[in-house]
Amino acid sequence: MTDSSDSPGLRRRDLLARMGAVAATTFAAGAGALPAAAVGSWDIRTDVLVIGSGAAGACAAIEARTAGAEVLVVESLPLFGGSSAMSAGVVYAGGGTALQRAVGVEDSVEEMFRFISGVGGKHPPLEKIRLYCENSSAHFDWLVEQGVRYQPRLSTGMSVPLDGESLYFSGCELAWPARDIARPAPRGHVPAASGMTGGRVLMEALLARVGALGAQLRAGVSGERLVVAADGRVLGVEVSEAGRRLTIQARRGVVLAGGGFIHNREMVRSYAPELYDCSVPWGNVGDQGMGINMGIGAGAAALRMHQGFAIVPLYPPESVLMGIVVNAFGQRFVAEDTYYGVLGDAIAYHQQGRAWLITDRGSEPPVLQDNFLSVAEGNTIGDLAVQLDFPRGALQDTVAYYNRHARNTEDPLFRKRASLLRPLQGPPYRAWDLSVDKAFFPAHTFGGLHTGLDGEVINSFGEVIPGLYAAGRNSAGLPGAPYIASGLSVGDATFFGRRAGRAAGAVA
Amino acid sequence: MTDSSDSPGLRRRDLLARMGAVAATTFAAGAGALPAAAVGSWDIRTDVLVIGSGAAGACAAIEARTAGAEVLVVESLPLFGGSSAMSAGVVYAGGGTALQRAVGVEDSVEEMFRFISGVGGKHPPLEKIRLYCENSSAHFDWLVEQGVRYQPRLSTGMSVPLDGESLYFSGCELAWPARDIARPAPRGHVPAASGMTGGRVLMEALLARVGALGAQLRAGVSGERLVVAADGRVLGVEVSEAGRRLTIQARRGVVLAGGGFIHNREMVRSYAPELYDCSVPWGNVGDQGMGINMGIGAGAAALRMHQGFAIVPLYPPESVLMGIVVNAFGQRFVAEDTYYGVLGDAIAYHQQGRAWLITDRGSEPPVLQDNFLSVAEGNTIGDLAVQLDFPRGALQDTVAYYNRHARNTEDPLFRKRASLLRPLQGPPYRAWDLSVDKAFFPAHTFGGLHTGLDGEVINSFGEVIPGLYAAGRNSAGLPGAPYIASGLSVGDATFFGRRAGRAAGAVA
Repeated sequence: MTDSSDSPGLRRRDLLARMGAVAATTFAAGAGALPAAAVGSWDIRTDVLVIGSGAAGACAAIEARTAGAEVLVVESLPLFGGSSAMSAGVVYAGGGTALQRAVGVEDSVEEMFRFISGVGGKHPPLEKIRLYCENSSAHFDWLVEQGVRYQPRLSTGMSVPLDGESLYFSGCELAWPARDIARPAPRGHVPAASGMTGGRVLMEALLARVGALGAQLRAGVSGERLVVAADGRVLGVEVSEAGRRLTIQARRGVVLAGGGFIHNREMVRSYAPELYDCSVPWGNVGDQGMGINMGIGAGAAALRMHQGFAIVPLYPPESVLMGIVVNAFGQRFVAEDTYYGVLGDAIAYHQQGRAWLITDRGSEPPVLQDNFLSVAEGNTIGDLAVQLDFPRGALQDTVAYYNRHARNTEDPLFRKRASLLRPLQGPPYRAWDLSVDKAFFPAHTFGGLHTGLDGEVINSFGEVIPGLYAAGRNSAGLPGAPYIASGLSVGDATFFGRRAGRAAGAVA
Repeated sequence: MTDSSDSPGLRRRDLLARMGAVAATTFAAGAGALPAAAVGSWDIRTDVLVIGSGAAGACAAIEARTAGAEVLVVESLPLFGGSSAMSAGVVYAGGGTALQRAVGVEDSVEEMFRFISGVGGKHPPLEKIRLYCENSSAHFDWLVEQGVRYQPRLSTGMSVPLDGESLYFSGCELAWPARDIARPAPRGHVPAASGMTGGRVLMEALLARVGALGAQLRAGVSGERLVVAADGRVLGVEVSEAGRRLTIQARRGVVLAGGGFIHNREMVRSYAPELYDCSVPWGNVGDQGMGINMGIGAGAAALRMHQGFAIVPLYPPESVLMGIVVNAFGQRFVAEDTYYGVLGDAIAYHQQGRAWLITDRGSEPPVLQDNFLSVAEGNTIGDLAVQLDFPRGALQDTVAYYNRHARNTEDPLFRKRASLLRPLQGPPYRAWDLSVDKAFFPAHTFGGLHTGLDGEVINSFGEVIPGLYAAGRNSAGLPGAPYIASGLSVGDATFFGRRAGRAAGAVA
């Protein structure tokens, strides 16, 4: 990503050491925010201060600047782009976007709303989902206007397209029960890129735009505490830069867009124990939860702190899904052909982190060996069951039931799609360990500050904290557990990041 | 319970209306705590102010008073005792309590620790569990010293004894897998009482002691906001009483012991969606989460806000457990003979809130009809499956597998205890709806403020907030999801309530 000219020599180790050093020296321990009275004079002044330079921060900066505000974006790491730049850059968009129409896909706001609100967890944030869906098509146009390029080609695969197609089914739309809840449409919008570099391409475009609009970017600057007036209004932030503490005044508002907390292991263990055991904390090393903690320190409520994605990327190739996934009781428990975020959630949150993929001759592609360990092998299902120490006869019953119906291209339990449905057809049978701590099992947090539709941060009494906004994974937004589609997180970050920036920038 | 002489005429409706009216008038909206500068003079002064008069509050008051502090306990409702007084009053204690020894039960601190730390959710608070177990026997003695009476008789039943026995297996100790993790011992200590009035008996004793020690009790007083100095120290509380706002100074500390938030429906939906759909919000109507919200407003971190108990009290009588419990796929998923808090958790959190109990001739006691609806009836298992619209043949396979092994008194899947294990033996077969919104399914919240071993409240930066303590369900303590034993919540409330009161009371 963009190099930081401010701290070119900073090594990762120094950086991490500095990140750990959050002990405040300028005010009493126990005060989660810095009282304005303790700030002598401001070291730096701006209208809108954005903490974090990922998708949410960049979009907030663009809109705040467009609204006429002076904008400073600070980034704790030496490179800009956040976890968004590490991602595939997918934005979940629909309701008839220009790209959907260009490739002949039919979609509607209502079907998109049904999918997001009806397929994920219980009691999702309906108002945010509604707003997101209604403005999705316009939001996609805006991304294009910022210089993000898309190829009007549709991929038929289940995973991020690697051949330059910009639209695909990025979620579980085609799997049961989602396909009965909402009419499926491909809604994963991927920047034109080679391989998995969509996030980098997306962030290069957005950050270039941030710079072109005249917002300032400063790397190697970590937010430490919010500075708060006696009446609760957020006035600015105390930050650290190369060991020094600086205070930055934000006349119109502070936008917290500093990412999740998957790399703050203590936070993960306390808030999201199911994610703690997942083998790969997924995200930029800057995902330390500081933005969330600063907000909480100023009295903000935080929601859904236990949620996140826990994904088990079985495919590609999709042929592996002709196998079956079972729990420690030898039972199937999920449609194998669902989005791997849904599969991962089922394992991490609902099966105590343990599961196995059973493959046979023909459903075992060589690539599995890269990410998963084969822990049993045999000529019969019974051989596997013994090696796995499964309850006697349980796996055999499961396979018998599965085969009996698969022969008729049916799957009464989880309605796997016909193209992936056939009886297990013979040895070698293998069991692959899909347990969260044994498999390649990336995890990322979704919990964050409670925000309104314009990113305004809300306290535990339901009141807006004046001067404070949050977006992306510093906020509790659209993505939840289960994570039902790639692109919801970056989509939410860009969409609500924009709204937060616009609201903060427009403050008189 | 004890009558409130302060607001004898207060009706529940007035009370609820008042509870909803949390809009602060004396300071700016958005400030989660009231700055000390905004408080002219204190209306009331004390050393230790305890918010809430349940088990945690009463124990805190006793210890603070014993430490020499002036103590005021305020209660939002007209009656003292909190949700603890509604409960069965079970305290989970072990490691060789006087009562265990009196009835010849062997137990050890280590086995108790293994049970609590090893059987519940992932990454439990080990330090708290350790402290609790090591001091459990002494804590029980203390309860007796306060005047709580116990009968040295052991019940062999699985539920709260109704014939005056004071010790029983209150959790899932005897069910698999718990019994393989820790040597089972009965640890549910119930005050000598008739029927389910143990909580009232417990609270009458504790509150009498509070009064005898000279602590003040004041009903009809709701905590609204903490009053906080510029350096973060908590100085007191703004409360409301009969529509008036008062400020109370707490020279040594404030102990938040105001209970969970199951009756604050908006909080439940936001924080604990799985509990929202449960049919019976279980707890005192004062469980509005105000203590938690006051703490968050002052910068405290809150942990495990999504957790709680969701219980499905199938038994007594235990014969019903000769039936099987299945999910929407006709699969068994839990040991039917586990504690009903574990069974309820499995349904509410891991089966999307849906499950059914299948009974046969001989496993269907009449009492089921009081709490559960029979939704299918037939002469064969297949009849039930059709009526329930289960996946074709799935329930039949489940029952065939179960019967095949039950014939040998075996249950390879969930190892139900032998005394409850026999094949389903013939019609009439019935299915009872155990879904969270259809069955009698009480729910209560466990999330609360992050506290240290002495109840000191901790902010998002891991620092202690000076002057602020929390206990019981205002804190994140021992009880989690799944709730593995009755008595852990009241046990935690009494034990850590004492520690919070002692710490606050001892402040110089």
